[in-house]
Amino acid sequence: MKVGLCGLGTVGGGTFNLLVKNKQEIAARCGMPIDIIQVASRNMNPTCDLNGIAHTENVFDVVRNPEVDVVIELIGGTTVAKDLVMQAVEAGKHVVTANKALIAEYGNEIFDLAREKGVTVAFEAGIAGGIPVIKALREGLAANEIKWLAGIINGTGNFILTEMRDKGRTFEDVLKEAQELGYAEADPTFDVEGIDAAHKLTILASVAFGIPLQFERAYTEGISDIAPSDVRYAEEFGYRIKHLGIAKRLEHGVELRVHPTLISEQHLIAKVDGVMNAVVIDGDAVGQTLYYGAGAGSMATASAVVADLIDIARARKQGSTVGVPSLGHNADQLNDLSVVSVEEITSAYYLRILVQDHPGVLAKVATILSEHGINIESITQKETEEHDGLIPLVMLTHVVQEKNMNHATQAIEALEEVAGQVKRIRVAVSED
Amino acid sequence: MKVGLCGLGTVGGGTFNLLVKNKQEIAARCGMPIDIIQVASRNMNPTCDLNGIAHTENVFDVVRNPEVDVVIELIGGTTVAKDLVMQAVEAGKHVVTANKALIAEYGNEIFDLAREKGVTVAFEAGIAGGIPVIKALREGLAANEIKWLAGIINGTGNFILTEMRDKGRTFEDVLKEAQELGYAEADPTFDVEGIDAAHKLTILASVAFGIPLQFERAYTEGISDIAPSDVRYAEEFGYRIKHLGIAKRLEHGVELRVHPTLISEQHLIAKVDGVMNAVVIDGDAVGQTLYYGAGAGSMATASAVVADLIDIARARKQGSTVGVPSLGHNADQLNDLSVVSVEEITSAYYLRILVQDHPGVLAKVATILSEHGINIESITQKETEEHDGLIPLVMLTHVVQEKNMNHATQAIEALEEVAGQVKRIRVAVSED
Repeated sequence: MKVGLCGLGTVGGGTFNLLVKNKQEIAARCGMPIDIIQVASRNMNPTCDLNGIAHTENVFDVVRNPEVDVVIELIGGTTVAKDLVMQAVEAGKHVVTANKALIAEYGNEIFDLAREKGVTVAFEAGIAGGIPVIKALREGLAANEIKWLAGIINGTGNFILTEMRDKGRTFEDVLKEAQELGYAEADPTFDVEGIDAAHKLTILASVAFGIPLQFERAYTEGISDIAPSDVRYAEEFGYRIKHLGIAKRLEHGVELRVHPTLISEQHLIAKVDGVMNAVVIDGDAVGQTLYYGAGAGSMATASAVVADLIDIARARKQGSTVGVPSLGHNADQLNDLSVVSVEEITSAYYLRILVQDHPGVLAKVATILSEHGINIESITQKETEEHDGLIPLVMLTHVVQEKNMNHATQAIEALEEVAGQVKRIRVAVSED
Repeated sequence: MKVGLCGLGTVGGGTFNLLVKNKQEIAARCGMPIDIIQVASRNMNPTCDLNGIAHTENVFDVVRNPEVDVVIELIGGTTVAKDLVMQAVEAGKHVVTANKALIAEYGNEIFDLAREKGVTVAFEAGIAGGIPVIKALREGLAANEIKWLAGIINGTGNFILTEMRDKGRTFEDVLKEAQELGYAEADPTFDVEGIDAAHKLTILASVAFGIPLQFERAYTEGISDIAPSDVRYAEEFGYRIKHLGIAKRLEHGVELRVHPTLISEQHLIAKVDGVMNAVVIDGDAVGQTLYYGAGAGSMATASAVVADLIDIARARKQGSTVGVPSLGHNADQLNDLSVVSVEEITSAYYLRILVQDHPGVLAKVATILSEHGINIESITQKETEEHDGLIPLVMLTHVVQEKNMNHATQAIEALEEVAGQVKRIRVAVSED
């Protein structure tokens, strides 16, 4: 099988080197060699020895190359990359990509064309690096109706939260170090505000539930507002704070949300630290399964790119194409479930309220919560004054609909004994 | 696609019920309905409503049924089950089975015939219940040379070790409870002596390394000798004791061994408790990934049986058959790696030695270890007398070859200050 590689950066370079390093093993697994016959990149990668393989600076040369069976898109972005993928598919070539933004935002259109042309557009490498979680959802768990999934799918965010917990550091302090270490971009918005995670979550939800990609409807909340005290109080309640992507199937819709989340320290995913990724999937037959590994990195991501190539090669060897539909369900049998607005979701909550140290304040807060149908699960009032005679009132609630919590929060913030805004963090409960 | 179901016990009943419950979802995923057209079982399962589906007491009726495309073998054992599978393959039918003993002991012969006949024999359900770990190894991680894997692949054993740790109970005490709860068989040998785990490990190793199945060469050691004090001392060193199946690729062979193992409490697999299963896989590109979930149970195992059916149905829809070779590598490109004898393996060790509380004993023990090239990593001498003036000397060693440890152990046991046998438990080190 002859492939053309577009992009020779971190993942592109890793893919090149992996196809060279494990050439023999890969051929033994798919029954035919996989050969890179053309590379397109603007810059050379010092880790790659092209060794006579044709090189071009124009990625569209690869699409026009009649010898190329599969185009690997690793240039990133959603402009040239989109044109490249659409033209490759139009030309009847299979595509393998690690581009989650492209798939999350334009996947519906790309998959429609791919189906029409009878080719595969594979994207395992876009989600959770080398962890084969798309394969698990579309194939390994295909007998299940998926109830929900939750993932730590951004390594930068998890590194920051892990450091904050382990060393009591502030968000800003750890972010600065992460930038120096190269874990975080100079503009960290994409990672720490949850946009990258929302791209990945959008794709996971679509293959889990068999629904069209609906990135524009995902709810996204970052971790930059998490204070060291929140991490500490969560710990006292027996929880860890993680930046989770959560997708949940409801009777008449789907919840799709990325936000900081308290998780019981008993749950395995609460113990996933540093830059590692993990996804928990709850299926109606299998129960909860978890998939863990490196969510990024040159060779880890290349592992998924090449696995997708092997799927295509094995089908080719059978004189066929990959029989797994892009979204796990046949295109004419997708589920008609829209993503619900964040006001409609239900969640338990962690609340931290800065109050004057007067008798009666707790009663007022509790009354407001009760009036909005919100039950308190546990509560702790700290004697430590934060400033100006204010003390923190910290509590966990039972599950409530988001809009009720919004109303209750407004009423609490209007109390004269309450200073500033109520800090709210959602809590994952065991039935989640 | 028309299937015949042989066996209507725990897994057979679950498979029947799952195919009924998720009929629509499954059809949407594979683009065609999967219909059970015949059931063979000696007894009825009260959870299953056959609703007019043909029933027979003779499993070979299913093989002779010309309408049946796929035979599901869930009768267990390696006698009738083997005849059933071989005859089904001979008749050109695909087979899905959850029978790890059958595959581990007779897989080479079964796969040879299946290849000759151009049919699939699928066995995901045989290993770690509904966790798609065979799919991960054969497909998701197919770009990697697998370096090693280690798994908690027997839920009964893990339940016992978890209870021993959490509550300081003895092996015998927990086993009795597990038998009462139905987690353990009246004859627990199969689970607690590691035979069941060795069946599963044999299969995992073969698909990981692309080697023929070599069950008869697996080394197996059970957990019945683990004392509460071992669990406690391990904990003091920062380790947990788990019953692991370990397969490691060497330069000129493969290690294949099931035994109690100390694992650093920092490792995610050390935190897998109760009846749950987990497998860690180390690939040269992807690094370590972990797969976790229920390793047994009616519906969890059925999830894997039906996933295998869906693979077959999807390939059928493409007018093809499943293109993934049984052992992940093409049959004519298997790796020629034999399982090495246990004397040849290398491991770090936990040692517990009962010694007389005299000065100089430690020096004698340390001298013997040193003479055999064994370095001590850490050591603790307990002041608590066990009985007759004897105290336990507990230590962790660096990595050493098993045969050196055998010689050193013999020499230590020959010391007049040492009572009884040296308790040895292997330790997984981070490079493992």
